[in-house]
Amino acid sequence: MTSIDSTEASAIARSGDTLHVEGVPLTEIAGAVGTPSYVYSGAIIRQQYAKLSNALDGVPHRLHYAMKANSNRAVLQLLKGLGAGIDIVSGGELFRAMAAGYSGADVVFSGVGKTVAELEYALDSAVKLINVESRAELVALNEVARQHGSVAPVALRVNPEVTVNTAHAYISTGEKGHKFGIPHEEVPQLLEFATGLANVRLAGLGMHLGSQINNASPLRDAMPRLFFALAEARRLGHEPQFLDLGGGLSVPYAAHETDADVDDYATLLRTSMQSAGGDLELLLEPGRFLVAESGVLLVKVLYLKHAAGKHFVVTDGAMNDLIRPALYQAWHNIEAVVDAGGELVADVVGPICESSDFFALERRLSRVAAGDLLAVRTTGAYGYAMASNYNSRPRPAEVLVDGSRFAIISERERYEDLMRLETDHLQWRSC
Amino acid sequence: MTSIDSTEASAIARSGDTLHVEGVPLTEIAGAVGTPSYVYSGAIIRQQYAKLSNALDGVPHRLHYAMKANSNRAVLQLLKGLGAGIDIVSGGELFRAMAAGYSGADVVFSGVGKTVAELEYALDSAVKLINVESRAELVALNEVARQHGSVAPVALRVNPEVTVNTAHAYISTGEKGHKFGIPHEEVPQLLEFATGLANVRLAGLGMHLGSQINNASPLRDAMPRLFFALAEARRLGHEPQFLDLGGGLSVPYAAHETDADVDDYATLLRTSMQSAGGDLELLLEPGRFLVAESGVLLVKVLYLKHAAGKHFVVTDGAMNDLIRPALYQAWHNIEAVVDAGGELVADVVGPICESSDFFALERRLSRVAAGDLLAVRTTGAYGYAMASNYNSRPRPAEVLVDGSRFAIISERERYEDLMRLETDHLQWRSC
Repeated sequence: MTSIDSTEASAIARSGDTLHVEGVPLTEIAGAVGTPSYVYSGAIIRQQYAKLSNALDGVPHRLHYAMKANSNRAVLQLLKGLGAGIDIVSGGELFRAMAAGYSGADVVFSGVGKTVAELEYALDSAVKLINVESRAELVALNEVARQHGSVAPVALRVNPEVTVNTAHAYISTGEKGHKFGIPHEEVPQLLEFATGLANVRLAGLGMHLGSQINNASPLRDAMPRLFFALAEARRLGHEPQFLDLGGGLSVPYAAHETDADVDDYATLLRTSMQSAGGDLELLLEPGRFLVAESGVLLVKVLYLKHAAGKHFVVTDGAMNDLIRPALYQAWHNIEAVVDAGGELVADVVGPICESSDFFALERRLSRVAAGDLLAVRTTGAYGYAMASNYNSRPRPAEVLVDGSRFAIISERERYEDLMRLETDHLQWRSC
Repeated sequence: MTSIDSTEASAIARSGDTLHVEGVPLTEIAGAVGTPSYVYSGAIIRQQYAKLSNALDGVPHRLHYAMKANSNRAVLQLLKGLGAGIDIVSGGELFRAMAAGYSGADVVFSGVGKTVAELEYALDSAVKLINVESRAELVALNEVARQHGSVAPVALRVNPEVTVNTAHAYISTGEKGHKFGIPHEEVPQLLEFATGLANVRLAGLGMHLGSQINNASPLRDAMPRLFFALAEARRLGHEPQFLDLGGGLSVPYAAHETDADVDDYATLLRTSMQSAGGDLELLLEPGRFLVAESGVLLVKVLYLKHAAGKHFVVTDGAMNDLIRPALYQAWHNIEAVVDAGGELVADVVGPICESSDFFALERRLSRVAAGDLLAVRTTGAYGYAMASNYNSRPRPAEVLVDGSRFAIISERERYEDLMRLETDHLQWRSC
């Protein structure tokens, strides 16, 4: 069995035969909470936060956690306790951030399609910054703010149109022809247009290049275009306070992948902020980087099948619990919680009636049998956050580990919950 | 604008400039219920049910609706009213079917990974048939039934290992090397093994070939292997009552696609049932065929963007509402609800911060502006059923239309609902 525990993620490691999250054997959590369940290590989240924040020591900055990666309130509160701000992309996220104790001053509102209701909600909450992605949105926001009687703090999101080598086409966001950001050549014109809008204030400039970026190169390539926009903004009399460089730092999923070069990244950010001058604050929006490695999806083997020369390990977890393998062809390490030795090469699949319901194809595992537990690793980000009720499957429980103790941070969904939104007595309306 | 209304789906059609579902303009539903919302035509569901059932007139059969396609209670009840049985794949589906008024005798339980708790629940509910997909499952079921003090009615699901030309690798299920069913060459051995199990009774044989099959050819190719299994079963003294031929009938998504050849399919079924002899009842498990064309996802245009020579129509619906384009590269027709003429070629995208969040790429639409409504067609199946809360987006409302009236059949989710399962006060457990 390969294990990616050896470096950073050592808070998830084997003690004897049994995989532990910090001081808690996963067998114990399975016994107490059942399967499938997501289990998160608080220590790994703290460790990742410290790694990035420490690398930026001396640079005026704030890490705004991109909560779309994992929006459980306990996770939000843990990060708030470390000093994180929050990066939101919807009204629902703003609601959850507020419920977790964040204030408007902690909030950056990103995203390509904010509704009028969401913009009003953001102004009501006095958010720190609203990232604007198009002229149409800038105009809409100016109008919403006028009616609201306020001046909205905005950052223009520049699309630098650089090519980023990400693992999958679906996670690149700063290239030409994507829906994200404002094409860099249109930025000067929009900066000038913004000077005429009474109810928006250019508080910052930003860009976001994509996901799973493991060194400073893409940012280095893109920086001149952001600097050009910054100079242009200042020339036009704007007084930006924030440079928002987004998220995108990678985590290793497979054994052969390496950690993101945080020092290289931080060094570029440091020199960039020096070059930028003024009293700019750097904003970063890490999501996956902070939480992915903290999580495992704990599932139980239901059946072993052998068909047409292949082995199948059928688990009680499925694509409704974790859709990344089906949607992004994502590779997640899978380990037997109790290593019984031996070897098996198998497809690890769920009970859902379609061929996309798999966690791994032709994967080398230790020998497993019905009833054994498996840990699907590096699932702290974009795991539970993307879970659905497909096949009328209740969503799994979520558990947080802290040293030698653990707590349920969201309850396993029940059958009754599946029909919670359905109407008991139809109210027919005629037209 | 191309429209696929011309043939079957005429209950969704334009009256004047405005797209109607039966007698109700979609503009009226948007005004009353908001967007995004799923809207279903009851008439189309009835029409599809009748088409298949009528084609099988004289053949002893029952249509068991595969509720994973759309599990809303109002849809289940509508189909129950037509005489449908139900095909379930999980305990959650059994729970919902019972809540909709189905009884155990209406239920076929399919699926590749049933838990012990689900098997117990099925026996408690006295279901009609449990489709078994592996020797391990047969052994497990026999043991569960023994402890339950009952004899479980089972059908073996034969994997005939024929190649089916489906639109996407993810929706083929009857080929060699898939997780589904029992490889046909292992069936005789398993039939013999079953004669020695006291708590299972071989009540049927079945197979399911995949999805989006538009004529009888794959079934014709596969039938000899099922017949061989049937002869073998009888030779061993089993007395099967049911032949379960699964679902998989296609619907047209794009204008160039044709309706499934139901007559060809029914003719094959008719002659097959005659050849099979005995008093066998034919069971079919249509899902998509019954409900896909009944539905539209109604969304509103938030912004138009133009970047790098491309147009983007940003809507308030997203991949969390409808994941089929991202997950299966599914093509859905998209129409402006009010046709303003003109033409626009654009990517139709949602507000979610990733490149996979699209409904259509480089699609020809009529001219649309911010505030306009769009209908994403043929989304009655695997639409809402796969919806998630990704990006903390509440799930859309669902609406059923009946002639000139409509009713909300599930409420739009609220922000508060997003945190419903989260723990207010963590209960730490030590170990």
